[in-house]
Amino acid sequence: MDSNKMDAGQTGPDGQQISKKAAKKQQKEAEKAAKKALRKEAQAVADEGAAEADCAQGHYGSYPMMQSASKPETVLRDLKDLTPELADQKVWIRARLQTSRSKGKQCFLVLRQQKWTLQALLSVGERVSKQMVKFVAGINKESIVDLEGFVRKVDQKIESCSQKDVELHVEQTWVVSQACPRLPLLIEDASRPDTDDELAKVNQDTRLDNRVLDLRTTTNQAIYRLEAGVCRLFREFLTSQGFVEIHTPKIISAASEGGANVFEVSYFKGSAYLAQSPQLYKQMAICADFDRVFTVGGVFRAEDSNTHRHLTEFVGLDLEMAFRWHYHEVVDLIGDMFVNIFKGLRDQFSEEIETVGRQYPSLPFKFLEPSLRLEFPEAVKMLRENGVEIGDEDDLSTPAEKFLGKLVKAKYDTDFYILDKYPLAVRPFYTMPDANNPKYSNSYDMFMRGEEILSGAQRVHDAEFLSKRASEMGVDLEKIKSYIDSFKFGSPPHAGGGIGCERVTMLYLGLDNIRKASMFPRDPKRLTP
Amino acid sequence: MDSNKMDAGQTGPDGQQISKKAAKKQQKEAEKAAKKALRKEAQAVADEGAAEADCAQGHYGSYPMMQSASKPETVLRDLKDLTPELADQKVWIRARLQTSRSKGKQCFLVLRQQKWTLQALLSVGERVSKQMVKFVAGINKESIVDLEGFVRKVDQKIESCSQKDVELHVEQTWVVSQACPRLPLLIEDASRPDTDDELAKVNQDTRLDNRVLDLRTTTNQAIYRLEAGVCRLFREFLTSQGFVEIHTPKIISAASEGGANVFEVSYFKGSAYLAQSPQLYKQMAICADFDRVFTVGGVFRAEDSNTHRHLTEFVGLDLEMAFRWHYHEVVDLIGDMFVNIFKGLRDQFSEEIETVGRQYPSLPFKFLEPSLRLEFPEAVKMLRENGVEIGDEDDLSTPAEKFLGKLVKAKYDTDFYILDKYPLAVRPFYTMPDANNPKYSNSYDMFMRGEEILSGAQRVHDAEFLSKRASEMGVDLEKIKSYIDSFKFGSPPHAGGGIGCERVTMLYLGLDNIRKASMFPRDPKRLTP
Repeated sequence: MDSNKMDAGQTGPDGQQISKKAAKKQQKEAEKAAKKALRKEAQAVADEGAAEADCAQGHYGSYPMMQSASKPETVLRDLKDLTPELADQKVWIRARLQTSRSKGKQCFLVLRQQKWTLQALLSVGERVSKQMVKFVAGINKESIVDLEGFVRKVDQKIESCSQKDVELHVEQTWVVSQACPRLPLLIEDASRPDTDDELAKVNQDTRLDNRVLDLRTTTNQAIYRLEAGVCRLFREFLTSQGFVEIHTPKIISAASEGGANVFEVSYFKGSAYLAQSPQLYKQMAICADFDRVFTVGGVFRAEDSNTHRHLTEFVGLDLEMAFRWHYHEVVDLIGDMFVNIFKGLRDQFSEEIETVGRQYPSLPFKFLEPSLRLEFPEAVKMLRENGVEIGDEDDLSTPAEKFLGKLVKAKYDTDFYILDKYPLAVRPFYTMPDANNPKYSNSYDMFMRGEEILSGAQRVHDAEFLSKRASEMGVDLEKIKSYIDSFKFGSPPHAGGGIGCERVTMLYLGLDNIRKASMFPRDPKRLTP
Repeated sequence: MDSNKMDAGQTGPDGQQISKKAAKKQQKEAEKAAKKALRKEAQAVADEGAAEADCAQGHYGSYPMMQSASKPETVLRDLKDLTPELADQKVWIRARLQTSRSKGKQCFLVLRQQKWTLQALLSVGERVSKQMVKFVAGINKESIVDLEGFVRKVDQKIESCSQKDVELHVEQTWVVSQACPRLPLLIEDASRPDTDDELAKVNQDTRLDNRVLDLRTTTNQAIYRLEAGVCRLFREFLTSQGFVEIHTPKIISAASEGGANVFEVSYFKGSAYLAQSPQLYKQMAICADFDRVFTVGGVFRAEDSNTHRHLTEFVGLDLEMAFRWHYHEVVDLIGDMFVNIFKGLRDQFSEEIETVGRQYPSLPFKFLEPSLRLEFPEAVKMLRENGVEIGDEDDLSTPAEKFLGKLVKAKYDTDFYILDKYPLAVRPFYTMPDANNPKYSNSYDMFMRGEEILSGAQRVHDAEFLSKRASEMGVDLEKIKSYIDSFKFGSPPHAGGGIGCERVTMLYLGLDNIRKASMFPRDPKRLTP
């Protein structure tokens, strides 16, 4: 890296002098570097007879570490704005050096800014020296560079770049931050479709171990922008419907639901647990007259499940709502919310969806408006008609859910649907039984591409009945006393649900692994980075 | 509670029959209740000569537990909409019974819906029986009731209610959810200003122990709506400035910064920690080209600090941003963001601010546009001029911060300001030193009413220099290897900061304790509810 330090006494791209102290340091380093370079180039120099004067001196090198020493006026253009409208204008840009290829007196660069890429060209000439070309060709991939040059229209479209109609004819090149020479993965490799059998790809653990590099692929840039959209659309819709955002504690004193699958935390001289869901707190907010609440935050599950769809920590999009007469008021609202999210993604993230599709192809996500709602017995019937053996009060296995998703898609042409009226026996004690048929309950799951993304129910809001139900299901009343007590001061009927944010992203985009939708995933075997 | 069950065979307010089974059950209970009531009333009945026929029969009682048995069309009006425009119309409402007072043949009720209150009146007459008045007078406070009645204009404003110009003349009363008769705290008591020396108030632990009741005060309804506003305004502003929302893991493998003040978590067969800040992950996102990111989520501090402003778990509003030339690009943006939040609160939550002020009076929050930025040496000078002894490179003590806040307010008339250029010695190893004066650093705190609400800095983005700084400050390089490695693949200069959401709410409203701004606070002594 040292050999790339800025030449001593040179001005920066802003025309301002760098500080004296820095200049001095630069001077020394530059001299050292110059000597080294000279030695290396001895043979080439000998061939040409004598060391030529460097016509590009002061137009390339490395900045000293950016320490906010000055506030220059130089405007850095975004790559996405380099179009034929700027043809023949001189601009400065800052971008990553994705690749470089030198060929005789020329050096071709591909520069990248998030999902945008641009071709740039250095040619030895009046303002660009051989030394400069050599210097630029030697900059490590993934380094951040500042370039000045002319935007030039090209005759033939550059198909490999996002900016197809122009290239940059470079006259200055400064390294802002040098990457180390050996990268643990190459962005090109990490960007290839899984279906490409011929060229190198990067396996998931290598990706996750080197997430800072892996996240630079256009695919990942798109995935996490879309995921931010999922959260924003969730909140915007609910806010427009009078919901209040709340925050619920993640450290809790007692493990609800018996203490299985819960992480223990040392808490000063005692111990505590990580919340498996914000449900109790959402319900308390409802009992405290907030009427409609949502919360977005970490949810923790100590399940030793090493599947494509389980994480030990995920982002929960949770909501809870008091209703007037019937829990379908809530189910309908959640259905509308999903329609709103799906439309928002489709309309606001079409480019991201297309980008992800190039690496991970999938069919476009289909949904109905209003959302399709089926009742559990209908699902059982559909499964039986197609050869699946299932009892009336059995829960759906994961393969049965997937298969049902296919049947529903075939019949109704939707990738999203609501399955209502689960058997009471397969739901937790706080689930409200159906008023007319005690075998069923006022509970529902919602599915995308055949996988569950929301689980919810009308909750029992009567303390006495809640105790009864808990006893019937063998729950230790002592452990849930404070939960039950929350309903003793007058409680409105209410229902809600919890959504896994990463699952929505994964299934909307048709990805095959939840780790592709979690920026820094946690599973039983992964705690880093 | 049983004695309040709905009369057998009666129709609900929707005119629909309730289910046969429920009706049968109701019948039995009603008979039992009726017998009991009759026994109790024997004396009164004797006084009047004979049991009168109940002209109100079928117009009062308790609903069976709401189990979503039907979907009636009845429209329930919101209390806030009951104004003179609805005079002489018959309406249904659902609300909490805040208080009731019976007086001869009349019963006055105060009903509450969140922050709205309404007076209602039952008078024995053609449609209201003595039995009905007695039933209604016996409903426990905080129960949820459905009432039907006529909206009537009143001659004299009802000063004690939010709906001052009308009252409801009740003809039907149904209990939706009965509260238990003895409440651990009364909403009226919990709503009194601390300055009121004469009447009962509720101490903080009682409030927090019974949070479901305490949160029903109009003050708390206002505080948490405003707090939701803080988060929304934070996100909206940053989203408008091109920031991407990310989610960072709370369970981490290693305790950064040496392992002090960190909660340990058992993680399957090993152990892990709770993140004290999302900083590393925000920085990784910047190194991964997300350019501008923010995240809202739980932050955990195992500090045994029992003060008015420390929590062990709080909501962090964190942001990080790559800049072009100078970290002031980031400082200015954060300053603008706060101005945006303060304006949004002032303009969109004026009613909430006023409500909170009635119980917890404070001066209106003042701010400048653009935000005031002072440099650390100026602060030291101001303090010294006012008799505080402080060294050039000393950190500010909490009392010094508070005092400085007062001096700044007196001089500049602002409750918000930015203090830039902290001494390098008092900041963490990853803080970028000042380019011109190695005693200082490119770091800043921001203050509201003299208390710190944000701490931030330009971060060292050069891996080599970061290692050097860590070594100089005695940090074990082995423990922060993965942090340092994140900067080896080309890293843009960047800066950011973390904000405590509860502190912003507390200080904006001038509250005296952070527990008043955390719905379910966690401190070394409190893990419940």
